[in-house]
Formats: sequence, structure tokens, C-alpha cells
Amino acid sequence: MMKKKSFAKILTTATISLGLAGWAASAWAGSLEDVMKARGLTQKDLLAAAKTYTPTGGRDEFLVFSSGGQSGQVMVYGIPSMRILKYIAVFTPEPWQGYGFDDESKAVLAQGKIKGKTINFGDTHHPGITETNGDTDGEFLFINDKANPRMAVIDLKDFETKQIVVNPIMKSEHGGAFVSPNSDYVMEASQYPAPLENGYVPLSKFNEKYRGAVTYWKFDRKKGRLDPSKSFSLELPPYSQDLSDFGKGPSDGWSFTNSFCTERYIGGIEKGRPPFEAGCSQKDTDFVHMVNWKKAAELFKAGKTTMINGHPVIMMDTAVKEGILFLIPEPKSPHGVDVTPDGKFFIIAGKLDTHASVYSFAKIKALIDAKDYAGKDPYGIPILDLKKTLHTQVQVGLGPLHNQYDSKECIVYTSIYVDSQITKWNYCTGKVLDKINIHYNVGHLMAMEGDTAHPKGKYLVSLNKLAIDRFNPVGPLHPQNHQLIDISGDKMQLLYDMPVPLGEPHYAVAIQASKLKPKVRYKLGWNSREDKKSIWRTRPGREKIVKKDGVTHVYGTLIRSHITPEIIEVEEGEKVSLHFTNVERAQDETHGFAINNFNVNLSVEPGKTASFTFTADKPGVYPYYCTEFCSALHLEMQGYLLVRPKGVKASDAAVSEGQTYTKADYDKQIKNNVATQGVIDSVVGYITARNFKSFKSVVALVEDATDQLNFAADAKKKSEEFAAKGDYNNATLWAQQWFQYQVKTADIGLRAKTYLDEHGAVVNK
Amino acid sequence: MMKKKSFAKILTTATISLGLAGWAASAWAGSLEDVMKARGLTQKDLLAAAKTYTPTGGRDEFLVFSSGGQSGQVMVYGIPSMRILKYIAVFTPEPWQGYGFDDESKAVLAQGKIKGKTINFGDTHHPGITETNGDTDGEFLFINDKANPRMAVIDLKDFETKQIVVNPIMKSEHGGAFVSPNSDYVMEASQYPAPLENGYVPLSKFNEKYRGAVTYWKFDRKKGRLDPSKSFSLELPPYSQDLSDFGKGPSDGWSFTNSFCTERYIGGIEKGRPPFEAGCSQKDTDFVHMVNWKKAAELFKAGKTTMINGHPVIMMDTAVKEGILFLIPEPKSPHGVDVTPDGKFFIIAGKLDTHASVYSFAKIKALIDAKDYAGKDPYGIPILDLKKTLHTQVQVGLGPLHNQYDSKECIVYTSIYVDSQITKWNYCTGKVLDKINIHYNVGHLMAMEGDTAHPKGKYLVSLNKLAIDRFNPVGPLHPQNHQLIDISGDKMQLLYDMPVPLGEPHYAVAIQASKLKPKVRYKLGWNSREDKKSIWRTRPGREKIVKKDGVTHVYGTLIRSHITPEIIEVEEGEKVSLHFTNVERAQDETHGFAINNFNVNLSVEPGKTASFTFTADKPGVYPYYCTEFCSALHLEMQGYLLVRPKGVKASDAAVSEGQTYTKADYDKQIKNNVATQGVIDSVVGYITARNFKSFKSVVALVEDATDQLNFAADAKKKSEEFAAKGDYNNATLWAQQWFQYQVKTADIGLRAKTYLDEHGAVVNK
Repeated sequence: MMKKKSFAKILTTATISLGLAGWAASAWAGSLEDVMKARGLTQKDLLAAAKTYTPTGGRDEFLVFSSGGQSGQVMVYGIPSMRILKYIAVFTPEPWQGYGFDDESKAVLAQGKIKGKTINFGDTHHPGITETNGDTDGEFLFINDKANPRMAVIDLKDFETKQIVVNPIMKSEHGGAFVSPNSDYVMEASQYPAPLENGYVPLSKFNEKYRGAVTYWKFDRKKGRLDPSKSFSLELPPYSQDLSDFGKGPSDGWSFTNSFCTERYIGGIEKGRPPFEAGCSQKDTDFVHMVNWKKAAELFKAGKTTMINGHPVIMMDTAVKEGILFLIPEPKSPHGVDVTPDGKFFIIAGKLDTHASVYSFAKIKALIDAKDYAGKDPYGIPILDLKKTLHTQVQVGLGPLHNQYDSKECIVYTSIYVDSQITKWNYCTGKVLDKINIHYNVGHLMAMEGDTAHPKGKYLVSLNKLAIDRFNPVGPLHPQNHQLIDISGDKMQLLYDMPVPLGEPHYAVAIQASKLKPKVRYKLGWNSREDKKSIWRTRPGREKIVKKDGVTHVYGTLIRSHITPEIIEVEEGEKVSLHFTNVERAQDETHGFAINNFNVNLSVEPGKTASFTFTADKPGVYPYYCTEFCSALHLEMQGYLLVRPKGVKASDAAVSEGQTYTKADYDKQIKNNVATQGVIDSVVGYITARNFKSFKSVVALVEDATDQLNFAADAKKKSEEFAAKGDYNNATLWAQQWFQYQVKTADIGLRAKTYLDEHGAVVNK
Repeated sequence: MMKKKSFAKILTTATISLGLAGWAASAWAGSLEDVMKARGLTQKDLLAAAKTYTPTGGRDEFLVFSSGGQSGQVMVYGIPSMRILKYIAVFTPEPWQGYGFDDESKAVLAQGKIKGKTINFGDTHHPGITETNGDTDGEFLFINDKANPRMAVIDLKDFETKQIVVNPIMKSEHGGAFVSPNSDYVMEASQYPAPLENGYVPLSKFNEKYRGAVTYWKFDRKKGRLDPSKSFSLELPPYSQDLSDFGKGPSDGWSFTNSFCTERYIGGIEKGRPPFEAGCSQKDTDFVHMVNWKKAAELFKAGKTTMINGHPVIMMDTAVKEGILFLIPEPKSPHGVDVTPDGKFFIIAGKLDTHASVYSFAKIKALIDAKDYAGKDPYGIPILDLKKTLHTQVQVGLGPLHNQYDSKECIVYTSIYVDSQITKWNYCTGKVLDKINIHYNVGHLMAMEGDTAHPKGKYLVSLNKLAIDRFNPVGPLHPQNHQLIDISGDKMQLLYDMPVPLGEPHYAVAIQASKLKPKVRYKLGWNSREDKKSIWRTRPGREKIVKKDGVTHVYGTLIRSHITPEIIEVEEGEKVSLHFTNVERAQDETHGFAINNFNVNLSVEPGKTASFTFTADKPGVYPYYCTEFCSALHLEMQGYLLVRPKGVKASDAAVSEGQTYTKADYDKQIKNNVATQGVIDSVVGYITARNFKSFKSVVALVEDATDQLNFAADAKKKSEEFAAKGDYNNATLWAQQWFQYQVKTADIGLRAKTYLDEHGAVVNK
């Protein structure tokens, strides 16, 4: 019953009789109408289903990078399928990705220490993608941390976090990451005022000593890193600065930052004072800050800065004197200052007002050029007259927040928090065009490339902050609800509700998927966090254990289905550094690595070298294994770390075995392997008889299968050598290893065959 | 333009003209056929879309609890929508949930320390739900950690992790969590053999000193906790034990655990030895272990155990002597031993064989009763004859792994790794019925309650381990692919591909959603991790700061939109313990809490009390705020922690303010509030004129709105008192606070109105 022959036999059957049969056999069973009736679907629901459902193997047109809020991560999902593709670890350790567990990523997280303290979370709010001429180009992603002012850089070639920089002067931020039209700078604006220095200042000195600020982080695109040595900040009044945006086109060179609590109110409800929420929303208007950042950059280069905490800051008096900083009143407590695609206007919606205000940059520029000011704020900053700067104001609803642009001219969408609606309107004519209910209480909005020079229209996502009753209940802590809306027609149409299972997104950015070109593997022996060859890399056959400077370095490899070395024995107290290189070339052949009781999981994708350094502090036996289900034999991808008590001699090489094998065992195994090879040959024949070279995926599979067959040949050779010496125990085991490589080859071959069958490959002429 | 009047005006308009209009207006635009053509959908795709698409507000029929693999979490998603609803933090800290950040959950994670070491990740594999009479009841969920043998308990009332227990004797495990038919015990089986004691033992003593084991954790359902003092283990041979299952019906009282590497092979490829994968798969068969756990529990109670690391273990010789442990050969390297719903059979598929083997419990029992053994293993354990125990063996494919049962009699589904297929077959007749291709390389399978006494049929999920080319590329590390399959008909039909964005699930369990009864809030002042009133709870108006035993305890509250206290001033070096109670009653009104540079985020759901203890080690100004977007004024839900340098005197209560208000400001605010109240009254009138009491959600909203109006009345009273004293500054601010409560009331009222409109509320007669 369990003869090897049957394995080969069924393999033959599989390669001949299956293929598309599995699909074709499943008939068009049960009418669509029956299903709709049973599930209570309307015609409109069905249309929405057709607009979002993505069949197996299908691709999404847009990819969304969403902040993860206080989870400290970035969430990636597809539009229109609304399927979440990845959570990228940024400020919070995450073991599946090995982030914060391998030495290389620990070094990235360590960059985020503040005043010597490790911060193991972040409150991510606003992602920004690198831009070229005001359009997102899909090279890098930036994301901020509101709680502990920091900025992170993610490379969209491998979706990994590469850098974290700490803001040297802020104690709170919100208005980042915003990217200048050619990615020269990434902007970060403070939120709650605090002294720019690190010391204690009593609240009685709030007006004099507490400050806001905006930081311009210089981005070195070639290195793919922010350059703190070329970055600078601008001191701002102790208003609560908020969201920001860069100008473009006619407004290029300027940046905009809005604010709330320009009342400079300090709460204290515990002492009977009205709370912050009352005192911070009393005035009808707050201020949008306008900064000429190009001139600011020149001032920085000219040294017109003051060093605070070792960081160059352009002080307010300098900014006023040099004419680079202005204020304009804005409807109170706004959330978003959103520059139009052509850069001629920006729109601000005050969430305690009912209006969206369209500001004209041309009018603003003329006022500035004419030095036509309505006054100065208490810090001497010129204030422009609100009415003189406005193009128009439009009543859009209760609690308007954030604006996103359509590909259609003059069309903008505004999120309405209190009404739980989206308002579509024309910012040229000031006319409201449509409203749609959302569930519930939207914060930010996101249209496809909706904050760039060339929005792509088609879809809008309402990033709702409360789900309440929209999904199956999962306890007191609810998911949020991202709702997909079709904006291709005159009227908005709700398409899909997507629960957010982890974190609380604030803003998100969508990009055409075709702009992204992620890698499927690294160059062999790659340090992915530093983007260079790892000094710890090794190749198959060159694995070694080397003691150096008191550290035992293990240069190991990972491949389906074994870890080299399989046994590591060290002495109690020894410092050990493991370095594993995944030597696979196949796509999606990631290996993991965990050791019992050493708090480590590595994620080692094809080509990557990842390290883990630890002290073998307690004697014992610690199994290790591959944590990814990487092949049928993944459970056997294992090993032992042995920690000898101090002074105990190393055990000799001998291990005790439960089984030994004879010539009969060897002959049986060889017979099986020969039969299996026949089957593999038939699969190879099937593939090579077809135009497989026309299919990139299949070429990669054939390459992988060839690798496995070469490994099989090596094992075969070893087996034959032992057999020639009459060592049938080792001969049998190596013959089994040869068979294991055959199984891997067959697995890959069958996958290639299925792919060819499903993609209409034809027989070569 | 920004007059308060307009706010009231548009609110009136909103309440009158909107409602269902937003929906009804969006016409049936664009024909279904056009959409299908544009998106390349077939009729079959559309049917699949109709079977899975879930419109806004719709519910899923089943909820899935999936292991998160090396992410250390549990993923929850719905079927058929395949939308992920929540990631539950279990072994890995997760800041969105405050897990590992608040004192209460830190205490849970601290239970998981091993030999004094903090382990900040887990490799979760197999979740199990509590059972009653062999059917899942939805009360609690258990999940194991393979890397660091531990077991966690999640309460499905609030989807929170309540307990972690450390296995005292294992160094590696895999075969957990499996639950006995009435949840008396949760089973955990070891994987890679190791000494049960913690010391070093060289591999040369593998056969004598290395051991496997199975632990039976006693579950106290009333307390909702595992009870280590009533738990015990059984020593097993140094085979690599694997998956397990409990018997039920006729096989109740028995448990089954399969294994691989009964060859007891030790690798060492670095020294030229064939690797583990070769030596561990040489024999044609491994062993399934059968344990009479009811008798084992009696032996434990009778004290027939040996204490190892302080834990009672029934040694193998005792088990053999008492007749509670038997072995049966099984096709080599299996992955799953799956008891049929009626408990009469169990099925094992050896992944290096092509067969699934159906074992008859009746035959096994007869052999045991007759003491009809085929031999003994090297440890003296009786072995039954394979052929005599079999009901049948069926060729199911290349690399069969795991079995799940249908609601239809005798129907079972087996995952086929190498073929990348699912095989449907009849285990009574031994006939193969259908095969379907999956993409790619399935591990476990999951049918709806497919491992219980009463499977629910309908759907099957193929938990594929590789996604390769099925989704938009997101770098070298790919998501996995869970494929939903319709099993309601004779032929299986593929419905949906769901990418897994985080972690690598192994096994998952599905349960009818109707069995789950999660809470929407906690009792006021609740310690959710200990399931009792928190000693740190407080109520609105009773907030206080108390020094005790050298610790400054802050008893605070959180509510839309302020934190009490808003200012906390302490001295450098002071130990501070913050305790916040969320005093909301509304559903989904969670508040967060983060302080700059103190590595904390709390998630405080309605009713919960959460704490954070820290040392104010560095003088400075540290803003804190609510990290959840909880209302329109969420940005204003803020405060300051001030840390004075040692020896510096406390600053006086005075704070500097940027603004003061006059009687004119007061009058203006009052006028606005009176107008707003008129609008609120009209909304209240709209709601109360309808049968709102028939809608549970609306009753809850009205309750919440009433709370907000009561708060408004309090603020109004304060405002009037200050006005009477001629203090128009404070009178204006409290009037603003009164308005803020009005806005919250309006928000809730509009939500209630929308709900009534959408759910066909009628006017009262």
C-alpha cells in the first residue's frame, strides 16, 4: 500500500489527466438569481461586487499605503479588491518580518531611540510617496510618528523600513510626511507646542518659551536616505500646527501648514478650568502658515540659523525679517490644507465651521508682493486679510475635514465628519454636486493619486474612524471601516466596506500599481537594511564557524529543506553570532529561523543574509527550525543548539542513531529514485515540448527545478561513493536525500505545468 | 461666512433633506455586462462574486480564528466575505491594543517568561475553541507557541488574551491546541525531542535521554483559565511528535498524536552527514501514539507521576504497565490525525506517501482488549498491527497532509501539498470524488466546524503556504493565500483568493458567527485582563492624584473629548502610575493614550481601566494625547506631563493664556448654543416621533446622546454661574464647552436618524 511505486504512479497520472480539469469540471452550478436571493443582494450590490471582485491571480489597479496609526506600521492594500496585501513594520517590532529581531533591523529601530530610550511603537499618521514633478513615482515611502516625532523611510523596491530619523526639537508632531514636488524635502510639522530645547519650562511661560516648528528633512534619493546634516527647521508660534502640504506649479517653493488652538489656551479641567477642547475652539479662525521653503533653504545654507539641540533652526524673527513666513486666517480647527493639482489654489475646511475655503495663491502672492498685510500676530508675523485671499467659500456640511482631487477638472471631494458624508463639489464654480452617506464618521479621504499634479480619479476611499455596527462584532475594540466609492460617474456610488483589522489609519496614499517595480529576490548575500552586500554572507559549501574577538560567528545557509549547520555546540557564556544566507533563487522561498528560548525569529527572503547575536547564558538543549512552511519537508528543516556548562568538554562528533540501513534498503531506495526520475523526465518533456520560454514565471520555475536537479545529482554522487565503499547506511541516507530533491523538482515541475495549462501554452512546432 | 448660524442652518437642512437621498440618488449606472467586460470577468467569476461580496452592514455567517504563525498573533476573518476583522495580540506586544504597553497586559505577557527571559514573539500554529459535547461553543480560544512551548487563553467575550502558561518540560512543540470534547483538557504535544529537564545532554545520549511528551492542560471553564496545578504530562519516546486530536463518541477518552522521524536520526550536514530531511524520512512508516487520557488523569490523581521541573509526568514505563499508551504504524511523515465527526475513525495522511489511511477505532479497541500486539518499540510500548487497524487506504495525491470533514456523511477533504490540490473523497467507501487545483502548495485545510462532532459544510478554506504570483507584488516577502472553496455542491468551486498580510498561518478554526456573543463594553472600571473590577478605577468627578508608598498614582478618566487630568506635574525621579478609566457608554468609543518619549500607548475601550507605570527620569515637557480619532475634537484631547528637575519648586497654578473673552463673546456663544439646541430638539423630535425603540442600535445611540446632553447641561450651569459673577472669560469658555457637547449630541442624533431612515422606521401612531 505504501510502496514508492505508487508515488511515481500517481505522479504520472497527475501529469497526464489533470491540468485544467479541476477548473473545467466545476460547472456553472446554481443560478446567479438563486444566490442573490439567498444572500439578499440587490442589483446594485451585484454591480458593486462586479466592480470589486478580483478572481484568482487577478491584479489590482492601484496600491494603497495606509498609515497604521498607533500600531506603528504601514498597511498595504489593493484597489478595487480591497484586499490587504502586507503590513510593513516601521516603528514597532514585528517577528514575522524579523523586524526588531535580526541584528540588521535592530540597527534601524535603534536609530529611533530618543534621549537614549528605546521606543517600541509609533503613532503613524500620514504616509507620503516620493514625487517627480509633483506626481508620485513609487520609489520610496515616508511615514511619521506623532507620539515621538520621527520620520521613517521605506524602500518600495522591497517594502522594508530602511531608516528612522528622530526630530531633534519637537515633542509632538502631526503634519508629516509631506513631500516636495521633486522629493528634495520631506516636511514634518509639530503639533502640541513645547520648548524646542529638552528641559523643563513651566506652563506659566507658555507664550514666551513654548514653540511650534516645521522641519524640512533633506532627501538623498540616490542613497535612499534622509540626510539630517542637510536638514533644518523653522521656529513657529505656540499654536498647535497641524497638517501641511507643498505648493506646486505656480505655488512651487512654498509650503502650507494649518493650525488649531491659536487661542494658545491651556486646559486644566482637574482644577476647574474649562478643558482644552473648549478653550482651543473659541475663536472663529485659526491660521494657515505659509513658508517660502526655497528661500528658507537658502537662509539655512547661508548659516542664518540658531543651533538647538545640535540642529539648525531659522528663528521666527529671522523668518519675518527675511520675508519667508506669513499667516492667513482659516476657518477654525481645520484638518488639511490641500493644494489643487495645478497649484493655483489650496482648500482648507475648518471642522467646526461648515465651509470649505478655496484660497487663491495668485491673490496671496500679490498681497505679499505688495506687502498688503492686515496685521501681525503676537510674534510679529504678517497676517494677510482672509477675504482678500479667498477664491470662494462653499458650505459643504457639518464638520468638514479633508479634501481630495478628481482627475476631472475642478472636482474635489471633502470628508464631512459630523454628517458622516462625502461632499463632491466644484472648487472653480463653488457648486456642490453630490453627497453620499458613509458609515461612520470619516476622517481623511483618499482619491487615486488625489493629492498629486495628475490625479487618476476612478475611486475614492473614505477612511472612517468608527465601524460601530458594520461588521460581525469582535469585542469592545472595533476595526475601522475603509469604504470604497466609485467616482467615475456623476454620482458617487458606494462599492465596498473594508474592516481594518489592526491599527487605526489616519491618512493613506494610493498609487498606480504599474509604477511599482518591487524585487522578487535579493542579490545573494544581501544586507537589505543597508542595501549592500553583507559582510556576513556565505555560499553553499563554504559554511563555517569562526571565533573572532571573543565572538563565535556562524556563517550558515538556508535552503529547502535544511539549515547548515544542523548542530551548533557552544560553551555557557559564549557570545554567538549567527549569520544565515538564504541561497534560494526561487520566488517566495523565504525561510525563517527560530531558536527555543532565545526570543528570535528571522525572516530570510531569497538572497538575504540575516544575523542574530546572543549570549549562550544557560546550559541546555535548544532546538532550532525554519519557521516558514517552505516545502513538504519543512518540519525536518531543524537543528540543535547545545550549550555546554562551563568547563565541560565538547562531546565528540558521534551521535546516537535509532536506525541503520542495509544494501537491501539502498537497493529499494535506488529503485524508487530511478522510477521517480522517469516521471520527472516526462514532466520536463511536457514542459519543454511547449513554448514555456514565453512565460516568465515558468522560466523562473524551470531555473529553480534545474537547481534542485543539480542538488539531486550531488546527493546521488555521494550516495554512489558510499555504496562503492560498502557503507550502505550512508549510501541509503544520501539516496533518500537525492529523492528529496527529486520531490522538490516534481513539486516545481507540476506548478510549471499547471501554469502552462492555465495560460494557454502551445506545443512547439 | 463663518457665522454660527450657518452651522445650525445646514444642520436643519441635513436633517430634513438627506437621509436615504445619498443612496437613492446614485443610479444603476453602467451595465453589469460593461463592467464584466472591462474587468475581464467570466460568468463563473460573477457567481463567485455574488457568493462572497458582502454589502455594507452585512454580516458573515462564519468567523475564522487563524493562527498567525511567527507573528505571534491570531487573525480573525469572516466567511464568505474573507474580510479580516481583527488581529488579536497573543505572544507579541502590539501597541494599537495596548498589549504589552499597559500594566495589565504586561502582566499577561510576563506569565510567558521562560527561565527568566522575556520572549516577545511566538510561533502560533493551531488554535482550538472550547467544546461542549464535541462541538465548538465559542467561549474561549486556545493557541500554542511552537518555538517556546507555551499555551495562551483568549476570551471570546472581548477577544483579549487572558493567560499564557509555559510548558515546564518541553523545548519545542507543535501538536497543540487540541481541546477535549467537553473542554476538560487542552493538549500540547512536543515536536523536536530534547531532555525534559533543562540541562545540557550531549547528542550521543539522544536515545537514552532525549524525550518527547504530551501535556494535558486542565481548563477551569468557570475561571476561564488553564490550571497548571491540575495539569500533567506523559513522557514519550524521542520521536518527533506532531499533530494531535481528541477522540469523541466511541473514542472519547483517547487522544491521538502522530509523529515523524521515528528513525531517531540526527543530522549534521556541516560534518558531511546526510541532513535531517534525509534521515528523518527513510522508513516507510512512523507511529501514531494513542493515549487513554481519562485513565492517565486518574494515574495523575493517584500520584503515579514523577516530578520534572516541578511538573508531574507519567513516565513511559508507568504508562506501559498501566496500559494507557499504544503505537500504530502510519504512512511516513504525516501531518494531522483527524477524528471523524462520529468518533468511529481517524484519518492520517502521510505527506511522503500518496495515501490517506482510515483507522477504525473499533478494530483498534478490539486489538487492545485482546492484547493483540504486533510488537514493541525500543521503549517497550506495544505496537498494533497496521493492517488490522485499518478501515481502508485511499490514494489521494502527492503529499497529502490534513483532513477536514463535511456536513455530508462520510465526506472528507484532504490537502495535497505537492500536487497543489484538494481531494474530496468518501472515507466510508474509499472512493475519490473530486479534485480542485489551488494556488499554491496547501498546508492545512479548514471546513466550517470541520473538526467537530457536527461539521457545518458549505465552505472550505485552503490555507496555502505560497502565494508566488497570485497578487500584486509587494517585495521578496509575500503574503500567503487563503482560498475559499464552495463545497455545497458535488464539485468544489473556487470562490476567492485572500492574501494574508501579516504572519504565516498554519491551522485555523471556523465557527458559526451566531455562537459568539462578544461584549460591546466593559462594566465601568474593569480590569479586562483579570476579569474583575480594577482597584485603580475611578468615576467622573472623583479623579485624584494620590501619593502612596513612594508612587504618585493618578486616577484619571477619558471621555469625548478630554483627558482628566489635563496637566500632570511631577518631580524628576518620581515613580508615577497612571490609571485611566474610559467612562463612555457608547459602542466603539475607545480612547487611546500616549505620552511623548515614554513608549506607551494604551487602548482604553468603554468601561476599561488601564494603567501605565513609569519613572519620570528626565526633566522636560511631554505632551500626551488620545491616540484614537474619537470625535471631531479628538486633536484637542490632550495634556501635558511636566517633569521638574530635582529641587525645583512646583510652578503655581497660573498658566499663561493667549486670549481673554468679554460679555460680547459670551452673548455670541450663547446665541449660537440656543440656535443649536433648537436643531437638536428637531432631531430629537424626528427620532421620538418614530418607533426608534424597536431598534437596539438606536436605543443605544439615544442613551449616548442623553449622556452628552446631560454633560451639556453641566457645562451650561457652570457657564451661567461664571456669568452671574461677571467672569465672562470663564463663562464664555464653559459656554463653548456646552456647545462642544451639543456637537457630540448632534453627531449621535444624525447617526440615529440615518439608521432609522435606512432600516424602515415608521412614524408612531
